[in-house]
Amino acid sequence: MSWNTFGRVLRFTTWGESHGPALGVVVDGCPPGLELTEEHIQPFLDARKPGQNRFTTQRREADEVLILSGTFEGRTTGTPISLMIENTDQRSKDYSEVAKAYRPGHADYTYDAKYGFRDYRGGGRSSARETAARVAAGAIARLVIPEVTITGWTEAIGPHAINYDRFDRDAIGANPFFCPDPEAANAWEGVIDETRKAGSSLGATVACEARGVPAGWGAPIYAKLDSEIAAAMMTINATKGVEIGDGFAAARASGEANADSMSPGGGGAVDFASNHSGGTAGGISTGQPVTCRVAFKPTSSILTPVDTITTEGEATRISTKGRHDPCVGIRGVPVVEAMMALVLADQKLLHRAQCG
Amino acid sequence: MSWNTFGRVLRFTTWGESHGPALGVVVDGCPPGLELTEEHIQPFLDARKPGQNRFTTQRREADEVLILSGTFEGRTTGTPISLMIENTDQRSKDYSEVAKAYRPGHADYTYDAKYGFRDYRGGGRSSARETAARVAAGAIARLVIPEVTITGWTEAIGPHAINYDRFDRDAIGANPFFCPDPEAANAWEGVIDETRKAGSSLGATVACEARGVPAGWGAPIYAKLDSEIAAAMMTINATKGVEIGDGFAAARASGEANADSMSPGGGGAVDFASNHSGGTAGGISTGQPVTCRVAFKPTSSILTPVDTITTEGEATRISTKGRHDPCVGIRGVPVVEAMMALVLADQKLLHRAQCG
Amino acid sequence: MSWNTFGRVLRFTTWGESHGPALGVVVDGCPPGLELTEEHIQPFLDARKPGQNRFTTQRREADEVLILSGTFEGRTTGTPISLMIENTDQRSKDYSEVAKAYRPGHADYTYDAKYGFRDYRGGGRSSARETAARVAAGAIARLVIPEVTITGWTEAIGPHAINYDRFDRDAIGANPFFCPDPEAANAWEGVIDETRKAGSSLGATVACEARGVPAGWGAPIYAKLDSEIAAAMMTINATKGVEIGDGFAAARASGEANADSMSPGGGGAVDFASNHSGGTAGGISTGQPVTCRVAFKPTSSILTPVDTITTEGEATRISTKGRHDPCVGIRGVPVVEAMMALVLADQKLLHRAQCG
Amino acid sequence: MSWNTFGRVLRFTTWGESHGPALGVVVDGCPPGLELTEEHIQPFLDARKPGQNRFTTQRREADEVLILSGTFEGRTTGTPISLMIENTDQRSKDYSEVAKAYRPGHADYTYDAKYGFRDYRGGGRSSARETAARVAAGAIARLVIPEVTITGWTEAIGPHAINYDRFDRDAIGANPFFCPDPEAANAWEGVIDETRKAGSSLGATVACEARGVPAGWGAPIYAKLDSEIAAAMMTINATKGVEIGDGFAAARASGEANADSMSPGGGGAVDFASNHSGGTAGGISTGQPVTCRVAFKPTSSILTPVDTITTEGEATRISTKGRHDPCVGIRGVPVVEAMMALVLADQKLLHRAQCG
Repeated sequence: MSWNTFGRVLRFTTWGESHGPALGVVVDGCPPGLELTEEHIQPFLDARKPGQNRFTTQRREADEVLILSGTFEGRTTGTPISLMIENTDQRSKDYSEVAKAYRPGHADYTYDAKYGFRDYRGGGRSSARETAARVAAGAIARLVIPEVTITGWTEAIGPHAINYDRFDRDAIGANPFFCPDPEAANAWEGVIDETRKAGSSLGATVACEARGVPAGWGAPIYAKLDSEIAAAMMTINATKGVEIGDGFAAARASGEANADSMSPGGGGAVDFASNHSGGTAGGISTGQPVTCRVAFKPTSSILTPVDTITTEGEATRISTKGRHDPCVGIRGVPVVEAMMALVLADQKLLHRAQCG
Repeated sequence: MSWNTFGRVLRFTTWGESHGPALGVVVDGCPPGLELTEEHIQPFLDARKPGQNRFTTQRREADEVLILSGTFEGRTTGTPISLMIENTDQRSKDYSEVAKAYRPGHADYTYDAKYGFRDYRGGGRSSARETAARVAAGAIARLVIPEVTITGWTEAIGPHAINYDRFDRDAIGANPFFCPDPEAANAWEGVIDETRKAGSSLGATVACEARGVPAGWGAPIYAKLDSEIAAAMMTINATKGVEIGDGFAAARASGEANADSMSPGGGGAVDFASNHSGGTAGGISTGQPVTCRVAFKPTSSILTPVDTITTEGEATRISTKGRHDPCVGIRGVPVVEAMMALVLADQKLLHRAQCG
Repeated sequence: MSWNTFGRVLRFTTWGESHGPALGVVVDGCPPGLELTEEHIQPFLDARKPGQNRFTTQRREADEVLILSGTFEGRTTGTPISLMIENTDQRSKDYSEVAKAYRPGHADYTYDAKYGFRDYRGGGRSSARETAARVAAGAIARLVIPEVTITGWTEAIGPHAINYDRFDRDAIGANPFFCPDPEAANAWEGVIDETRKAGSSLGATVACEARGVPAGWGAPIYAKLDSEIAAAMMTINATKGVEIGDGFAAARASGEANADSMSPGGGGAVDFASNHSGGTAGGISTGQPVTCRVAFKPTSSILTPVDTITTEGEATRISTKGRHDPCVGIRGVPVVEAMMALVLADQKLLHRAQCG
Repeated sequence: MSWNTFGRVLRFTTWGESHGPALGVVVDGCPPGLELTEEHIQPFLDARKPGQNRFTTQRREADEVLILSGTFEGRTTGTPISLMIENTDQRSKDYSEVAKAYRPGHADYTYDAKYGFRDYRGGGRSSARETAARVAAGAIARLVIPEVTITGWTEAIGPHAINYDRFDRDAIGANPFFCPDPEAANAWEGVIDETRKAGSSLGATVACEARGVPAGWGAPIYAKLDSEIAAAMMTINATKGVEIGDGFAAARASGEANADSMSPGGGGAVDFASNHSGGTAGGISTGQPVTCRVAFKPTSSILTPVDTITTEGEATRISTKGRHDPCVGIRGVPVVEAMMALVLADQKLLHRAQCG
């Protein structure tokens, strides 16, 4: 089933294909009276934009956002906000090979299995270009939760992880990898250059943290903060895993090691000795930073030919030609941040609905 | 926000607290004409049931299910199916300590932060007893997808993992741990006994596999199979991470290593050389087994006193008394299976809606 | 599709058949901290209860409600509230005729067309007994909107309408017809007696008014108050029409006659010269009473034999035997009130979500 | 709450204001493989288009639709279909009076009460221009239900009703009123001319019929066909009432008069002697034509000054200047048809989901 809406009361619906005239998103349920112009959204799109340096895909898109509805005199009116981004660099590539054979790891075979045919140009709807629309929506979500600061970063490229002893929040924006470890960032330049030269690709792990979430957002059972975040992250292209707090490391720990003990903080606040839980207990925020980690697989688009079949079921081999992205996970950072913002903004409004 | 419904067209709503008179679930949208009596559900509840051996919690519940609506002459009618399970062993324990102090890692503090007060008896709504209701719902979901076989198992208890070279599907039901490695099962007896004696607890990793899912179930974007499964698993008590296919290992791999190359199979089928993707591409099933892995944290209920605060904000210490469950993840296996069945049944119906 | 949930953030799900062991409802999303015991619900069930006088169906049900979850020490906890009502008078009637032939105007033929078979005992899920569950849910909704007073009444039985010049709010509860016109109530006794004797049935029009709704509840487009109320009312058994404010009379009027002119009221309030709109403008409440009118068709269960077909498609005739309800619309009054309460409570919470 | 999505599995989301750059709709869940180009949509927009004759508003819009996503080589792909219509005639009118005073019967006061401020230009989001988006969506819905033929017509303008003895289906498209009674159409010319001259306005009743709906679409309780249609129609601007089948007339009838008796038809079909029920029983389609009737109030925009208040709460008077639409209900006909198509297409897919 096609399902292009996310959220419960702050809902957004994205549309658009890689090679259509445009893509966009409708954000519904946004509170009225928030200051909103294109300037509030564009910086986030710019951070995600392809073709900015030699380490990501060379598709060049202006990714300029237009607000088509939902604001008046620079403020949200409470009505649906329609955002549109025109596609400008749909290179007139030859897609005849992709049309006739399935690229393993891509949605080619499964789209055909589901829908009977597909728009094969640039991956159609399964292109990561769709994430531009959510980054735009996420910029609006941030306006709904001014009390929250969301920061994402790349934790590892392939097997090359950062060293958290060198973690420097200010470094994240100072390199093309969203890397908080300047030494690792340096090393990654070589890693990516080699990967590109080899026509290979690498996976990545992205971390994200939301500070300022008050205790009480979330829900006990099927809209648990953990579940909402996991669902959100796993809608992003190429993601295959998600952790809240310590995640799988918690599964290897003892109850003593995993306890986040509490003590009285100043002014009625609560101090936690640790944050193994990632800022949630019973699916509801504790007031600590909400943290998650997302696994991006390496893109299947590599120069090495891979065995596959044609749409007629015959054996063949296929390899990627043209534009090539050695590590799609890097550009996932602004998308992970956007999804975190969208989940938290939705949960803030839901909490307000029930608990006033 | 309280949100106790899961699913899009096959929807289920659970209700009930640990110490209320009963708990239950309403399953809506089930196809008509399926054979359904209590006998189809009870075995799955029995597998999840507490108090069956010395390795899990000693709460003793009959967990007997009653069908209150939605069937006629032993078949589903297409109307909502209401299932109820009475609580019989709400031991008249002294909850005065829990009422007055927050157990770190439990939902005590967050429920109070959200709702202003809470039913502290046995964890109230946040008790794992809620999962009995979903296991019952999952039994119905299995009837909707007879083409699919779902198998879950425990992959690790704390740091003690199975050896996949000894993987034996038949062994899973032959030990109290749902362990497919008889040697590991043997070792785990000692591990759990020691953990219990020490009043400690351990996390666990649970794996699940669904065979027989045809290519084409799932959705391109916000109802991706990966996302639906992740959301489902992360609603289970104590879960902190989820992986589809290779998950975080894929993030450390290269595109060549992660490719699931394809070749023509017999009779129009497709052969895959590997299943790193866990049976999905672009969020839609490939026809391979759908696989996932779920991280359960160790329960916070341990005998070692932990620093915490009272509801008045004063410093105190708290430890668990009475019934104690050294590894809650073990009993998570039937719950993980149930959630997998519920997601796949829902996606089967959604696929039928759009694609006929 | 089976769809047994109503509401957006305050959601309720009903279940149960006429001749099953019980029926019930799960109310999800209710704010925490509201005083709630069975005593808050029972009076509304008693008002709807069948068999209370000679003017409605003679089925006798205690309709005693049990709260199975969602409260603690007499207050709502914010978790799902499960209510159950046992069926006690499923008379062991002979349903063989109904099993084999379709009663025109009932759901017999359409259920078979949709689901392939049906629970024919007492109408199964299509029995008006389902409305007991919503009346119970409605009692909870009223607690969510203490600022609102909801009053329903019977406006006409068949062609016999009340005279609004004799409208007496206090009379509504003083006769078995929820009739605000004592003179009409008197006349209706004879009308119903004759209709019963003739084995015939009559339709009815029910009106409902909600006072105290502040300006600002509702939504501009697809959750307009008008639309939500219309949807809610048209889910009640036997309803075939709904009007907000002047309804179809407005369609015959001029703009001048239909204008609800405004003037300054005391203390910043607004005075309206009339309420043709039924308390909404653009789908959002104006602060005036929200009013609607609902058309109930006469029940198809009459003693006069009617042409029909058997389940095998053969011509036959069918007539109702046994318990007979000459005017089902009368007992619709508490149900209409309940649905109004449920819609308004949901809209109050939705308004709070978006607008704080 | 802003709620701009309608439908359950075939869902559409509209956006746009009267005086913004454009308006549009995203249609999600459409089956793949349907032929769809702008040519399939434009004729329905043309039928709704303003400024086509002297009997409706003189705003002139090209209402040219653009498909921005969801099709490939002229066929739907199963991904979201984004449609956009540019606004071209947002006349640079002076809105200072409307900005400062509330027009009774319009959404001015209620939007301010809800959102704190509003886009007052041309009614903003509450303008009937929004209905262009649904007419476009409805054109797609029609492609999903090729077995169904939907026809709407104007039944009355103010107190001036058609005579059903002169009902001529072919006449509907032959006059500017969608009037099936040529004699009435003739008379209405004078009625509208006079109403316009007087600066007055009139309500209207619109009827709609869907032929070809098979038995079995719809749902037993909260997605009853009756309820879904009522909800859909009551989201249209200016609607205040809706009837299915005989509607309020059924409330005045006896069970004998209202019975739709059945007999065996040719080839396993069923013949009904009448269609008082409007093609539904128990909320599910019977196979007869599905019929409804919708009440449109007269527009509040009239030349006669009406008492009102300013945004500061002071008494004032207001009257409409400039473009004036004497009977908004007329242009409601294509919108009613569109909503009928959207409801039925959604129900077809839902039926397929549950019942295969």
